[in-house]
Amino acid sequence: MSSPIKTPGVITCKAAVAWGPGEPLVLEEVDVDPPNPMEIRVKVVCTSLCRSDVTQWESKAQPALFPRIFGHEASGIVESVGEGVNEFEVGDHVLTAFIGECKSCKHCLSGKSNICQTLGLERRGLMHSDNKTRFSIKGKPVYHYCAVSSFSEYTVVHSGCAVKISQTAPMDRICLLSCGVAAGLGAAWKVADISKGSTVVIFGLGTVGLSVAQGAKLRGASRIIGVDTNPQKYEKGKAFGVTEYINPDECNEPVQQVVKRMTDGGTDFSFECVGDAGIVSTALQSCCDGWGLTVTLGVPKMRPEVSAHYGLLLSGRTLKGSLFGGWKPKSDLPQLAEKYLREEIQLDDLVTHDLPFNNINEALNLMKEGKCLRCVIHLPK
Amino acid sequence: MSSPIKTPGVITCKAAVAWGPGEPLVLEEVDVDPPNPMEIRVKVVCTSLCRSDVTQWESKAQPALFPRIFGHEASGIVESVGEGVNEFEVGDHVLTAFIGECKSCKHCLSGKSNICQTLGLERRGLMHSDNKTRFSIKGKPVYHYCAVSSFSEYTVVHSGCAVKISQTAPMDRICLLSCGVAAGLGAAWKVADISKGSTVVIFGLGTVGLSVAQGAKLRGASRIIGVDTNPQKYEKGKAFGVTEYINPDECNEPVQQVVKRMTDGGTDFSFECVGDAGIVSTALQSCCDGWGLTVTLGVPKMRPEVSAHYGLLLSGRTLKGSLFGGWKPKSDLPQLAEKYLREEIQLDDLVTHDLPFNNINEALNLMKEGKCLRCVIHLPK
Repeated sequence: MSSPIKTPGVITCKAAVAWGPGEPLVLEEVDVDPPNPMEIRVKVVCTSLCRSDVTQWESKAQPALFPRIFGHEASGIVESVGEGVNEFEVGDHVLTAFIGECKSCKHCLSGKSNICQTLGLERRGLMHSDNKTRFSIKGKPVYHYCAVSSFSEYTVVHSGCAVKISQTAPMDRICLLSCGVAAGLGAAWKVADISKGSTVVIFGLGTVGLSVAQGAKLRGASRIIGVDTNPQKYEKGKAFGVTEYINPDECNEPVQQVVKRMTDGGTDFSFECVGDAGIVSTALQSCCDGWGLTVTLGVPKMRPEVSAHYGLLLSGRTLKGSLFGGWKPKSDLPQLAEKYLREEIQLDDLVTHDLPFNNINEALNLMKEGKCLRCVIHLPK
Repeated sequence: MSSPIKTPGVITCKAAVAWGPGEPLVLEEVDVDPPNPMEIRVKVVCTSLCRSDVTQWESKAQPALFPRIFGHEASGIVESVGEGVNEFEVGDHVLTAFIGECKSCKHCLSGKSNICQTLGLERRGLMHSDNKTRFSIKGKPVYHYCAVSSFSEYTVVHSGCAVKISQTAPMDRICLLSCGVAAGLGAAWKVADISKGSTVVIFGLGTVGLSVAQGAKLRGASRIIGVDTNPQKYEKGKAFGVTEYINPDECNEPVQQVVKRMTDGGTDFSFECVGDAGIVSTALQSCCDGWGLTVTLGVPKMRPEVSAHYGLLLSGRTLKGSLFGGWKPKSDLPQLAEKYLREEIQLDDLVTHDLPFNNINEALNLMKEGKCLRCVIHLPK
């Protein structure tokens, strides 16, 4: 009954390759190496597009990391397993995890952190175990993204960066739990620990912001104020619990003043889900003295410095960040998947587009233009 | 047995008046009005000098608020009580409180905040109740500081800004609980809630920083690293629990790198007790990924913007501020005073100088030059 240890060969398949910052992805034939020890090779079934894929793709900060295969929010089926992998078998359904869980480092053992020291956020486009790539085109290495790279028919991930899910879970929706939705729910539940009756303001009503709203609603928040320059987001937001809406473009005063007036001094909680470091300060000013908590979730597109007047802190505010909503993927994701299957949390309404792999650039454009929530990209069967 | 309601007249007494930013204080004859309803007039016995008195005195940001009487860390005896005051009687021993507690506003009732909405930090140099002063020189108003103004033989404070203490408490030491020591202990106990075995780094080993150290030691912190450019502070610090010392001037690399190396990735807690917004970022970098908590206590002398790379937050750090250590003066200070009387906390070793009122400028100079911890100024009997 032990896992079959195979030494499969290289797979040649299609991947959407980014050749330079912001350049349209090109569907190329890539060679995907077999998994190293403790790795698995996964046939990607669906990958949804997250804003941070687009942010990194457009960024000129790391020009040396091209060609590169983006994508980090995905579902798939285990195609083969590397030496030493006992947790997965060929045919298992999995979600990828852009931060892994080794279960043995100081952080994994702490019970307080999801920042695994061994399989934490990978920034150099390489695999954790050997600092090499598993992708190549005619022998030339192609960089990974977040050690996931799901814009490919096949990919290799560390076994600590994948989570087994039920065979009954719909692959084209459950993939949303692989990043954005989990990040939002975790920010509301684990990081902020929103209590019943609380007031909440959410900056940015994309997938992450709406997931914060969903989390807040399920905790019984009394008011959930959404802030977004796109009024259509409010219409969508109502289904996720947003009770009030502010369009900053239509305000005659700073949005934090509007929030403070609406809530007699500020909300209990505020969330930065735009990915704009400047809005962290606005969020901090929008929550109340004494116990106001601001959670920052977004990955800034530029200017990574968060700035705030010290007086906001001295008067009792807390600023807290989180990656992936504080969830440990292996320990926590299966419960979120179960919640979806029991219809306790929504994913389906966040999917605005289903697109075939060939149309992946359309997804990137929709995201750039703010015309989608989640585009789910379906890889060939 | 009810309090005597008096309508006493004006008292003329000596006060140390600041006539302009940084100008030496001048002992002047001032007129001190009788207390308004819900106020008390206090004969100041001792006032210790806090760094923020000096910061505000030197600041050119509010030139309109001179002449002014500084001082906000004081013990005294109730001389008279205004209408409606039942809590105090003439002769009561009290500590002043630079943030008050009305016990009826949203914050006082919340159980989560010490930022009283009625008697919070007063910044305009006036009394809370009528936006006027109780001091004058030849009819010209003299501004208050933090609604306390203890550099005067007599002062008027709101009854919500004073706390009754035991007649047996030594007035010349217990006054330290009125601001700095309480702020440090509260940061360690209430704000950070330091747990046994934790690692701690403290930036700035003045009275506040040493009080954080004392608080950390009493909670059983395993390592308490003190950072200060003055090595003498380390010698003093040992008595308060500091176990290791870093002099940033003697480091060949940024101090946060030293801390991270000493502690395998950063401490559990870091405290900014210098009053330098730039050090908040250093403190944030010195605590660990995943659960690192930075508490900022200092009031910056300049540049009030706190800045930090968002990545420090996303990787799980928390930045939290507090005023007066999160303590509510009336609810919490009596317990701290009891702890001192039971010798469970130290105050005496923080007093480096006892000076007569006439020498108050010496105290200011010692503080400016970093040559003291607490100077206790003894008002005439």
